[in-house]
Formats: sequence, structure tokens, C-alpha cells
Amino acid sequence: MNFNPKNPAWFNRDRFILSNGHGCMLQYALLHLFGYEEPSMDDLKQFRQLHSKTPGHPENIMPGIETTTGPLGQGISNAVGLAIAEQQLAATFNKPNYNVVDNYIYTIFGDGCMMEGVASEACSLAGHLQLGKLIAFYDDNHISIDGNIDCAFTEDVMKRLEAYGWHVLTVSDGDNDLDSISKAIEEAKKVTDKPTCIKVTTTIGYGSKLAGTHTVHGAPLKPDDIESVKKAFGFDPSKTFDVPQEVYDFYAEKAKEGEQKEAEWNQLLQNYTKEYPDLGGELARRIKGDLPAGWEKALPTYSPSDDAVASRKLSEIVLTKIHDALPELIGGSADLTGSNLTRWKDAVDFQPPNTGLGDYTGRYIRFGVREHGMGAILNGIAAYGGFIPYGGTFLNFVSYAAGAVRLAALSHHQVIWVATHDSIGLGEDGPTHQPIETLAHLRAIPNLQVWRPADGNEASAAYYQAITSRHTPSVLALSRQGLPQLEGSSIEKARKGAYTLIAADKPDVIIVSTGSEVGISRDAVKVLADKGIKAGLVSMPDWFTFNQQSQEYKLSVLPDNVPILSVEVMATSGWSAYSHEQFGINQFGASGPYKQVYENFEFTPEGVAKRAAATVEFYKGRVVRSPINKAF
Amino acid sequence: MNFNPKNPAWFNRDRFILSNGHGCMLQYALLHLFGYEEPSMDDLKQFRQLHSKTPGHPENIMPGIETTTGPLGQGISNAVGLAIAEQQLAATFNKPNYNVVDNYIYTIFGDGCMMEGVASEACSLAGHLQLGKLIAFYDDNHISIDGNIDCAFTEDVMKRLEAYGWHVLTVSDGDNDLDSISKAIEEAKKVTDKPTCIKVTTTIGYGSKLAGTHTVHGAPLKPDDIESVKKAFGFDPSKTFDVPQEVYDFYAEKAKEGEQKEAEWNQLLQNYTKEYPDLGGELARRIKGDLPAGWEKALPTYSPSDDAVASRKLSEIVLTKIHDALPELIGGSADLTGSNLTRWKDAVDFQPPNTGLGDYTGRYIRFGVREHGMGAILNGIAAYGGFIPYGGTFLNFVSYAAGAVRLAALSHHQVIWVATHDSIGLGEDGPTHQPIETLAHLRAIPNLQVWRPADGNEASAAYYQAITSRHTPSVLALSRQGLPQLEGSSIEKARKGAYTLIAADKPDVIIVSTGSEVGISRDAVKVLADKGIKAGLVSMPDWFTFNQQSQEYKLSVLPDNVPILSVEVMATSGWSAYSHEQFGINQFGASGPYKQVYENFEFTPEGVAKRAAATVEFYKGRVVRSPINKAF
Repeated sequence: MNFNPKNPAWFNRDRFILSNGHGCMLQYALLHLFGYEEPSMDDLKQFRQLHSKTPGHPENIMPGIETTTGPLGQGISNAVGLAIAEQQLAATFNKPNYNVVDNYIYTIFGDGCMMEGVASEACSLAGHLQLGKLIAFYDDNHISIDGNIDCAFTEDVMKRLEAYGWHVLTVSDGDNDLDSISKAIEEAKKVTDKPTCIKVTTTIGYGSKLAGTHTVHGAPLKPDDIESVKKAFGFDPSKTFDVPQEVYDFYAEKAKEGEQKEAEWNQLLQNYTKEYPDLGGELARRIKGDLPAGWEKALPTYSPSDDAVASRKLSEIVLTKIHDALPELIGGSADLTGSNLTRWKDAVDFQPPNTGLGDYTGRYIRFGVREHGMGAILNGIAAYGGFIPYGGTFLNFVSYAAGAVRLAALSHHQVIWVATHDSIGLGEDGPTHQPIETLAHLRAIPNLQVWRPADGNEASAAYYQAITSRHTPSVLALSRQGLPQLEGSSIEKARKGAYTLIAADKPDVIIVSTGSEVGISRDAVKVLADKGIKAGLVSMPDWFTFNQQSQEYKLSVLPDNVPILSVEVMATSGWSAYSHEQFGINQFGASGPYKQVYENFEFTPEGVAKRAAATVEFYKGRVVRSPINKAF
Repeated sequence: MNFNPKNPAWFNRDRFILSNGHGCMLQYALLHLFGYEEPSMDDLKQFRQLHSKTPGHPENIMPGIETTTGPLGQGISNAVGLAIAEQQLAATFNKPNYNVVDNYIYTIFGDGCMMEGVASEACSLAGHLQLGKLIAFYDDNHISIDGNIDCAFTEDVMKRLEAYGWHVLTVSDGDNDLDSISKAIEEAKKVTDKPTCIKVTTTIGYGSKLAGTHTVHGAPLKPDDIESVKKAFGFDPSKTFDVPQEVYDFYAEKAKEGEQKEAEWNQLLQNYTKEYPDLGGELARRIKGDLPAGWEKALPTYSPSDDAVASRKLSEIVLTKIHDALPELIGGSADLTGSNLTRWKDAVDFQPPNTGLGDYTGRYIRFGVREHGMGAILNGIAAYGGFIPYGGTFLNFVSYAAGAVRLAALSHHQVIWVATHDSIGLGEDGPTHQPIETLAHLRAIPNLQVWRPADGNEASAAYYQAITSRHTPSVLALSRQGLPQLEGSSIEKARKGAYTLIAADKPDVIIVSTGSEVGISRDAVKVLADKGIKAGLVSMPDWFTFNQQSQEYKLSVLPDNVPILSVEVMATSGWSAYSHEQFGINQFGASGPYKQVYENFEFTPEGVAKRAAATVEFYKGRVVRSPINKAF
């Protein structure tokens, strides 16, 4: 592998992902041996201890660890994303004699990863996309936690990968035959139009008395066994946490090669930049991760006289307007392009040129019906650097990808989910497709923005925040149905996560709402006025962003002494942190034309006004404290 | 297929699942033509209309529809579950000359299903389990929503299924060649030790002017196209919603065959019951779905002097005690048997006998690392009838199966998730494995019990409720670490979802908590007493069940005029519906020994007492209304 321990961020390094992340001590130990600044020997001693740099599964907090792995199937799927990123960037920037982007993606996965559906999805797509730079090692040790995999996993893995279009190779003695592994890697590199999987048959716990059994999976070896392992491999059994100098020297030499490789690449890049100054400058910007100056000027704004537009369509308008200014934007849909509206008109598909359907400079990815795989791939693209990836599906099916969404948040990957058909407003497709619990779920994930814009300005604000938050993923929940452009909305205001849309002098009640229900609530304010009830209206497109505002601002939006009613066609769970009363749907939805479905659940101006009036009545004569005020 | 439209519930019917559920009009129309009581012609006219019996995707609210499908990949995975159920029941009850359980599971799936990872997981397991009664049709029409599947799905599906151990057959002209389809079914039936997939190459929208394009997927045909289609197939184009009598007659004759088949089976069952009265009685009970009288006496109870035990271990004790009394209990784990403790000691594995690892009477399923597949399979087993299925994984990885969990709730399947390692208490494995948002997510799903027992009595209560709730799935969130047996807990009390564990006279504060934090909160009550603060303690193992109690009961537990503090090592989202202040973790966890991780987040008696004292201070002098009191 090409990498430079002195500069783990070297952009053209080969990437390595340990998909079976529970084996992370392998990765920690190698980083140490190669001379990375961390982990130190002391860090290694702190393995799986609180506040250590060496947690129980690899986290991308440490240079050299590209993605956070451990949840099975994620790492190999991340690797597919890294390979897409490499391929796209190479196609975009490389010139004759200047392969400025040219690296391999290596990954090791085990039986557990291959049992997981997310890996199946990503591997199938990798085969379709002919990702020749991806070289995977299948650690075929025949053991998982339940013991010998004969009890559950007797499929022919290599035949399956061949069916996906992979190039497959075998090393039968992975315990000892390092030459064959090296040769297999050379063979893999020769095949440039297919990802390669090298099946390496190994013995788990090789050298231990427990070799070949699942009992070496999670527990430390016993002292006598440790002793015998050390003896068997020629080490002094009396020493612990000891690395002979010749071992350090060996690795240091390899590390020096990497340093040299980077120096050569730096020279290459310098020459490239001389010959292609625009491209060179642009690549430098992409590597650095700066956004192009003024990109945000392309964001559309709206006034109340503009037409009502579905927020999925507003999203399409944003993508159409900003994609030229933001070449790092790359994305697609899990087979719902025409519904998610994720593709700008003249987009080129990211496809192998021999398909005739696009080429590798393409920025639109046809993910197929593979939400979880898409999520893990987006994480991988983000981890590669130089991209802001997005993916589309129905909001309800973001749940299929929950494993990847949570890892995006944990790993601080800037990934954008374009989650359309965000409610019962999806209509006829019915309850199997109508999210109820989804926002409650996503909003409870730390470090995740969950935007539900109410109109065009809020949609632009959502994109502004999603694109400028370089370490936080975002879900954009977008409507199928048309939404009116609201009086009083603006990008600026919406960027605070919540703001007062209709201010009232000493209001009897404040309604706080999101997305498609803000327009309905606005009409409810009028209905209430007719009844002599003074209502204010707050639009709250993103809880996460609102939570980051000052206490003073938050209290100006959701003040003391006014009862607050939340209105959203979802599970009410969570809303009592921002409101005293909640109007929502704590049951599954219904199939029918969307307006009728809304009426059925009384999400109409009258239905909202009725609950608001009940709220006013209930709190009459009581001192009401803002839910923003907390004891600690 | 064997089925009787006059009695759609006939137990030995062949089952049919439409995995590509968006084609549900096929299913509705066939049910109508075969003479099922519903849907009527009027029901068909109400397709995708509000409150109709014919929603946009098939829901198991209508007899003849076995499982709710539409979310892709679920139906084929349900079918695997149905086939497991059939196989297990046949092995358990059939005797020479008495194949009282003997039916096929048929399913149709499309390209979309095969792209989804959940289907990969389930199909791989189906091959391993050699489920010969499963016959799947692959509707190979080469079209998905993004158009020709060449853009994303170019793998060799049949080779993949072969790699899983399936028997594969091909019908090249599925539009016209019905004979070949019939013959393929006969071929499929001859292979009894492999599931069969028949690839039927078809033209989407066959007969329409739009045939072969994705534009016929979701939109009605235009009038002139409808006319030409009707003409092409020999129907009167001027008539709508019209079925010629000869068509009804044809289907009625087939229906009569089914009636006859059921009559024969009833006779067989009668003779069987005569010869094997015990088995016959037991099978009748299983079919009816009654629980055996007195099964609940096997549930263990505990007193405070009993040892502290991890709730995952308490779960194992329950399973060990009740499995004899409840032969309908069948389950397993997604490759975490030793961690989930889901296997009673002398359990037999459900395995093909030729593996030497078990047999088909086995009630323990080795699911492999396939959480989503497991979830959809559990739904299928429940849908078959005669079983209460359960599946184990870490709570954090129930999220991988979110798509199946929500369908269990929507479809009223009695399925039990044994979700262990339910918090940061999982310790060293770290944040990638520690749930934070998971309970907020699950609790927001309608019709789902989410139990988090605090001790042995509560664990028994959780199982009691999970087993007696025949139309509601349950998640049991269980600790890795030991939990003390609490003074004042009982099965009876815990069955209400929440109850007062420590009553205080005019308390200054009430702490409401779940699972492993109840014991900590109990100790906090003592710390508070030392400070002169009177605290009550409520244990709230399941929100869903508590919500169903009378308002009076709820207010007796969470009364007016006392500030309430919730304590749970999870996202606080949702807790403000039951408390005024929330102590939780709105960030990701940490890798380390669990006690240190708890201390790190201040989940100690002192840490809880500190927040309780702050709560008392904050609400001093204020009138506090119970969060149970709502305006509407």
C-alpha cells in the first residue's frame, strides 16, 4: 500500500478499511508499527478503556482510520463508496501523464460482513460499476460468534461475488503463504474493469491453543496460551508490549517508501498545476475541502406571490441551480429518481463508459433499490474527501438505512439525504410507505440535522446548512405535495432552525410546526382570529440547529407565559420538549388521495384551530413556563 | 394452489405472497375472481381510495393476503419465514399417512426485491435451510422505477440464487407460455431439499402501447390504450369493471376444487386426531391460537434477597422455564446466541437433518448475521400461524431491521425481539454498538411494545405481556450488566407498564426510570433522603402499555403537583411526555468498562440525585401539572 505515516492525510494514499472492525487491534498495532504519531504504545495498552484512542471498534477519530467500522457490512460498503470517489475524481482530473488521482481501496471483510444485506447491496453495485480499484480480502476463517458458520452460512460466497460481476481469486493458506497473497494482489491490479475479491482461507487465532474456534473471538488468551503463541512466533514470552527494534526498523523502511511516494506525487501535482492551472487549483480546493466563494448566491429565494411548489421540487430547483457552482456535489437515488427529483436535467450518469449510459466523470449515481448500501456508500464517498455526497429515497425508507445513517452522524460524515414523500401526504401508496416514527427516530440521533422545510426559502436554508456543515450529516424531509410560499420566511431566519413566522402581540397561543403543516397552521391562525383567539406561529424546520442557538434566541421564539401547540403529521414523540400540547398522528396512516388523508386525520386549518382553542382553554389562568427553560 | 375462497383461513392452504406489492391489483382482482367474500367489485373500484379495502399496497387486513408487502424485499423474506413455519410444523406433527401440515409457499418478486439486502439475507438462509416447499417466481421484466435495470442491476440473479443453494428454473416467455410455467412448478416440486426460483421473463405492461417501459409502473393507462388492450385480449372495450360470466365460472370451478381439498383435509385431520389424540388436540390448539392453560405459572418471580442478574440472563431463565409449556415458541439469534442468551440449554437447532446439526423439529434458528432478514422471517413465521417467534440481537442492531419491525407493528404480527446489550452498559464494544436513539425510535412506532425491565419480576412481566398480546409485537431491551432485584416490584404491577416502586408522602420530586437505571435511581432516593429531599420512584418498563391504562391510574403514578425527573441512559427524546425534566445522553457513548462509562456520563446515585435536587429547586413555589394532563 501507498501511504505516508508522517502525513496520514496525503490525498493520494491508498485507503484501507477494516470491515470486520472487531479485529481493530490489527489496525491499531499496524499504525503503531508503521510509525504513525498515534497510537503510541501507551495508547495500545489502553485498548477498550475509557477516553482512550483505541476503542473497541475503529473510529475515524484517529488518522489512518478512514471510516468507523464494527457494525458488520458497513466497512466493505464504505469501501465501495471510496472506490466510486476515486474513480470519479480520477476521471475528472487526470490528464495524460498526470494520474494525480490514482490509488487503490483495500478492505478486509469476514463472514459476518458477507451475511449482512448492506454488503450485498454495495457489492452488487460495485460489480455493476466495474470498480477496478477496489481490492477486497475475504478473511475466510469459517467462524462467527455462533461458532462454525456451517450452522447458518453455507452459500458459495465467491460464486455470489462472481454473479455480481467481481473478479475472484483464492489463497488457500492465508496463515502462512504470504507470497500467494502478494501475487493475488498483483493479479487483482491487472483486472481494471472489475472489483477483485481475494478469498484468503485463514485460521482464527492462528498459533493459539484455541485456534480455529470462536472462543478466540472476543476474550483475551490465557497466560499460558499467550506464552506459547509468543514462543511459536519467536518472541520472548517474558516481555509484554514489547516490539523488537528490528521490527520497528522493518516497518520504518516501508514507511520511508511511502514518504518518497508522497514526495513524487507532490512533484507530479506541482507540474500538473503548472500545465493545468485551473484544474490544479480546483483539485487543491477540493482536497482542502473549502467551498467555492459565493456558491450560495445560486440558492433561489421566493416571495409569497410565487407559486406553491412541492418541497421535493424545491430541492430539485436548488440542485439545478447550485450543481455548477459546487462540482463536489455528487449523488443519486435508490431507484426513485423521478420521484425524489434528485437529478438535474443535464446530469451525466456515473457509469462505466462501456455501458453507453454515462461515464466516470458523471455525478449522478443510479443506486438501484439499495437504501442501506447507498447510505454506507455515501459515507465512503464523504470519507474519501473532495465530495459532498447526497442520496434520495422516500423518507420512510431512510429507515432501511438506519445503520448507515447513525454511522454518518457518529463519524461526522457530511452526507445529505434527500428524503421525499415525507408524510401521509404521500397519499395513495398508503401506510406501508407513510412515515410516522421516522422523524422521531432521526431527531434522536446525535449530530444529525433533520430539516423539514415549509417553503422555498426554507428549502434553500436547509441546503445552505447541509452544505456548510462540514462535519454533520443532514436529512432533508421533503413533501410530495405543493406547499405555498410563506409571508415572512427567509433563508436567514430559517437557518436558525426555528423562527417566528407570525408574531402576535401577547398571543393566547403559539403554534409551532414544520414542513407541509406550516401552511395549514398559517390558515389556522386566521380561523382562530375569527374566533377572537390571538395566535402566533413558529416554523421549526430543524430541531438540531435550533438547539444550538442562544438561550435568549430560543426563548424569544418559544417564550414564557404562552401555551405552545406543536402541529406535525407524525408521531408526537419528542415534541413536548418544545411545546405544551401536541397535535400529531400516533397511528399508521392511510391509502388515499392526500387531501382526503389529511382531512381524515383532521390536519386542516379547522382541525388545527380546534386543538389550539382547546390548548388556550386548558391553560387559562395558569402560569405557563416555556419548555425551553430547564432545571439543568 | 390449494386454497378455499369460502374459508381463507383454512390452515393447510398454500400461501401466496406478492413481494412486489405495488402490483397488488393483481392480487385483489384474483381474490375477487376466485369468489372471496372481499374484495367486491365495488371494493376494486375503490382502489387506493380512503377507507377502502384495496389500499395502494397489500395489507393483511383482507383474508387471502398473508402479509403486508410493498416495502421491497420484505415479501420474499416473509415467504422464507412461512416456509420455515411449514417445515417445522410438518416435522413436528406429521405421521406416516398423515401429512396434516403439507403446503407450499409461493411468492412473486421482482428486480426491486432482489436489489434489497433484506432479500439477500433471507434467500441465503433459505438455501442453507433447504426449504423445498418454497417456490418463488422472479418476475424478470427488466424494469424498475429508474427505467431499464441495465443502469444499476446487471448482476446474474440466478447465479446468485444458485450460490445460496437454490434450485433455479427458467421460463423465457412469461407473457404467453403458461404451459412452461406449469411445467416449471412441477419441476420445482420434485426438488424437495432446495427452495426453487423460477425466472419468468415478462414484459411489463404486456399488451399496452407502453409495454416494456417503466411508464406503465405507476400511472393508469390512457383511454385509447385501455381500449386497445381490452381489444387485444378479446374483451369488449366499451365495458368497464366488467367480468364475463364464463370467467367467473372458470374461477368458481377452481375454487370448488379448493373446497374439496379442504374437505379432504378435514377428514384427514379427524382421522389423525382419532389415532393421535394428544397431537391432534395440540395441533388444533396451535391452529386456533389459544395459549395453553396455566403456561404463565412457569414464569419465575424474585424477591429482593435474590442475586443481581443481567436482564439478558433473566430472559434466558424465562425462556428456559416456559419453553416446555409453550411449544409454539420458536426463535433464535442473529449470530449472537452466547450474548443474547436466547437458547435454552437442551434446545434442538432447526436445521436440515443432513447437516448433522439438528433437525426440522428444532425450535432454535441460527439466523446468521442477518438482522433485517431475521425480522422479516419472524413476521412470516407469525403470519403462518401456530407460532410465537422471537429473535435476538443487540438493541443497537434492531435498527438494521427497522423496515421489518415497522411492518410487524403495522401488520399486527406477534413477534418478540430479544434486544440485549441495551445501552452504554454494553461497555468496551463502544459507541458503534451502544444504542442512544434506538428506544426513541421504537417507542414512536405505533402498536409496538418496548419493554425495558429493571429486574427479574419485570422481565417476567415483559414476557407475560409479549406472549399474551397476540396482535402486537414487542421489543425487550435487556441489559448486559447485572441488575439488583428490587423491593416492591412484581409481575402484576409491572404489567401496567409503569408503577410506583417507592412511594413517598408528599414527595418533593418523583423520579421515573427504566431498566438498569431504576436500581441507580433507587440508590439516588437514599442519597436525596440524606439531603432532606423526599423522592418517589416510578419504574416505567413500557410506555405503550402504560398509555393504555386509565387516566386515573396514570395520574396516580405521575400525579399533579410534583416535579418529575426521567432518568435513562438514552436520548431524552420523548420523555418530556412523562416528566418535567430529563436526565439522559444526547450524544454518542464511549468504549470502556461499563461502570466507568456510567460514571463518565454521571449515571450514578449521586449524579441522579444532583439532577433531582436541581429539579426540586427549579420548580419550588410553582404549581406543577402532571404531564399526563393534556388539553385534548
